[in-house]
Amino acid sequence: MNQDIQAAARPPLAGVRIVDWTHILAGPYATYILAVLGAEVIRIERHDECDIIRSTVQDPKLAAFELGEGFVMQAAGKKSIAVDARDPEVRAALGRLIASADVLVENFRPGKLASLGFDPQELVERHPELIVCSITGYGQTGERAGRRAYDHVIQAASGLMAANADAQGRPQRIGLPIIDYATGTQAALGIIAALHRRARDRLDGQVRRRGEWLDVAMHEVALTLSAQTFASHAVSGIARKATRSTAFSGNPLSGTFETAKGYLAIVCNSEAQNSAFLRAMRADGVEAPEVERLAHLLRDRAVEDVHAWLAPVLARREAVQWEAFFRVHEVPAAEALSPAAAYEAVKNDRARWPEVELANADGRKVCVPGAGFDSSLTLLPPLTAPPLRGEHTLEVLRGAGMDARTLESALARGAIRHPWPAGERKTA
Amino acid sequence: MNQDIQAAARPPLAGVRIVDWTHILAGPYATYILAVLGAEVIRIERHDECDIIRSTVQDPKLAAFELGEGFVMQAAGKKSIAVDARDPEVRAALGRLIASADVLVENFRPGKLASLGFDPQELVERHPELIVCSITGYGQTGERAGRRAYDHVIQAASGLMAANADAQGRPQRIGLPIIDYATGTQAALGIIAALHRRARDRLDGQVRRRGEWLDVAMHEVALTLSAQTFASHAVSGIARKATRSTAFSGNPLSGTFETAKGYLAIVCNSEAQNSAFLRAMRADGVEAPEVERLAHLLRDRAVEDVHAWLAPVLARREAVQWEAFFRVHEVPAAEALSPAAAYEAVKNDRARWPEVELANADGRKVCVPGAGFDSSLTLLPPLTAPPLRGEHTLEVLRGAGMDARTLESALARGAIRHPWPAGERKTA
Repeated sequence: MNQDIQAAARPPLAGVRIVDWTHILAGPYATYILAVLGAEVIRIERHDECDIIRSTVQDPKLAAFELGEGFVMQAAGKKSIAVDARDPEVRAALGRLIASADVLVENFRPGKLASLGFDPQELVERHPELIVCSITGYGQTGERAGRRAYDHVIQAASGLMAANADAQGRPQRIGLPIIDYATGTQAALGIIAALHRRARDRLDGQVRRRGEWLDVAMHEVALTLSAQTFASHAVSGIARKATRSTAFSGNPLSGTFETAKGYLAIVCNSEAQNSAFLRAMRADGVEAPEVERLAHLLRDRAVEDVHAWLAPVLARREAVQWEAFFRVHEVPAAEALSPAAAYEAVKNDRARWPEVELANADGRKVCVPGAGFDSSLTLLPPLTAPPLRGEHTLEVLRGAGMDARTLESALARGAIRHPWPAGERKTA
Repeated sequence: MNQDIQAAARPPLAGVRIVDWTHILAGPYATYILAVLGAEVIRIERHDECDIIRSTVQDPKLAAFELGEGFVMQAAGKKSIAVDARDPEVRAALGRLIASADVLVENFRPGKLASLGFDPQELVERHPELIVCSITGYGQTGERAGRRAYDHVIQAASGLMAANADAQGRPQRIGLPIIDYATGTQAALGIIAALHRRARDRLDGQVRRRGEWLDVAMHEVALTLSAQTFASHAVSGIARKATRSTAFSGNPLSGTFETAKGYLAIVCNSEAQNSAFLRAMRADGVEAPEVERLAHLLRDRAVEDVHAWLAPVLARREAVQWEAFFRVHEVPAAEALSPAAAYEAVKNDRARWPEVELANADGRKVCVPGAGFDSSLTLLPPLTAPPLRGEHTLEVLRGAGMDARTLESALARGAIRHPWPAGERKTA
């Protein structure tokens, strides 16, 4: 195998080891992106209870395995150990595990990890090659630090709910945990940037005295992500009126419209697109004077009159039919699909939606998210099944220097957990 | 200066050169993140017209400079050249500029860049160190490739509008260009991962035969970002009912509530948080039988009765007061701020919101978004002002091998543009 092919065949984060001490959504999504890009990700879980994302499960067949559907969508390719971090032998092994890692990701409240014996500042002083990424609601310092935060609370505090207000101006929660996921993405980006910095410094022959500690805050991510909503205020002191659920451009042909079946989003932001729409109406058999009347209303930007004009026309067909019709006429439009339908339409693209088999549960196969982009070089590694809690406890702790006798006594006193009775299933 | 300090003082992408041939939102946001992390970013703009993000401007004083507020929020630290890419001399210089770069980012429709003489596949074949990142609505291949896409259309097609439906179940556009920004973030992440892969391969002594071409699609980013909305469908074939604008958990104490002034988001997802809320009510002087009645309603998960109970109580104070009150009682809650108010509350944090001076316009100072995270090592470089269109045309093209005479004739025939009359203002 020549070196070029060899290089191309290794995913971008191959050889990188991540210790993932995170819970619920944002942190695990960050490490999922890293796993999908080829990193080895080892989740530290509790021996005595199960993360809410594991136990929130719709299908009772998965409940026994603690494989909640939301967990399955962001856990493929990871390993899991289940331990009592307060046990001295376990803590010593975790210290060695972290020392062997390139990155530690955690989303405890500020100070909590230090109270468990792993102060991030001390860790980066002691391990000059280590990157620690801390994810919180409001950051490590400042007067908000330590406040409890959830996606919905952050949406309120960062202006996103107001930007998503309803027609009466009442702030509305965006109906998905968008800030958790955006925070996970930003954390992954920060970690990869830190890995790049470390590789660059090595290439330059620079010796590091300390590692890097990243401070990722949901509130900050929400604000950077929504900068367009306060841009005119920030730059010119001019408040922009909320665009509600219609169009950013204010063009009356941009909006969401009811059809015979389903809703259709149409976006015409330019004169050329308005003209394309008018041509499409003529092609569809609308009488010339009626099309002319619409053209007038568009010139006057008469939003309500345009919508009144459109209603009976769009009621003639289903959204899926209008989408196909407008595609031909180069008018940007799409049916507002349900999330499930949207997923069905893409899940067969293996480069972007790798399939994993739940071999450790009931054997079903699931298409899970990929990297969010594709590449001409190898991107995704083969992904193992989302792990049972503690599925890799023995294998990983053995690798971190716990011998057979110590492991056995830790199992016996309940300081570590393994999902199968000892000896019943072999681990690597 | 010792090497440790030297390394720590260089932002993660220092020394990386990006050629940014993108428009409007997603692409420019991707390169903004790269600029903020220390990369040199050179925007290629048109000589004959101005990007809509530059010309959309609320403050007429900025209009003359083509510094629309939305542009200012994602252009600091970049350079700009304004050229006619169809001019042969310019095209040759652009070829040399791209050859000198680490990354080319573009968001033309598939095939358009090749028609301008820069086929991404050919570029990565010719330049083994080059990374090309293409950003589109639906990707480079497949039956959707080439379809026109806007944030709103992608929100419809990816299920986000349905997840954000109103109380009547009508799909609602999320009221900010969230997919444009999320796509920019994902593109930046992909680029940094590719830079890391390249550095790792160098460290490993591997020689590349070709560069890397990244394919980032808004539709794909939207779907990966919303995986929790279709998780139970994808894994177990069970459709989860839309959570609308209330709570993901379904707990009646999670939601958005009207107060004497403003709206308050409250998130109680656990028994412990419900208890904290009940204690807070008692502390606030609500009679014991009333608190007991609320406790019963919570046990029954009687959403409407709980909301009816809350309405007169929450009407006693303003949202900002309730937020402070609940913080003391450890109930997660926040006022739904306007985007402008949310920005005002954070903009003085210089580590996260660097200040830039529009020295090339009316001299005002603006706090712009940082990296979306902070670090113990140097992260942000000093940021120059968002560039005027063509502000760095002469400097950059000179660096790309155009001599004074060639530049002058290109200026004279209008193939390149410079915002100041030649000679009136010196460029570096």
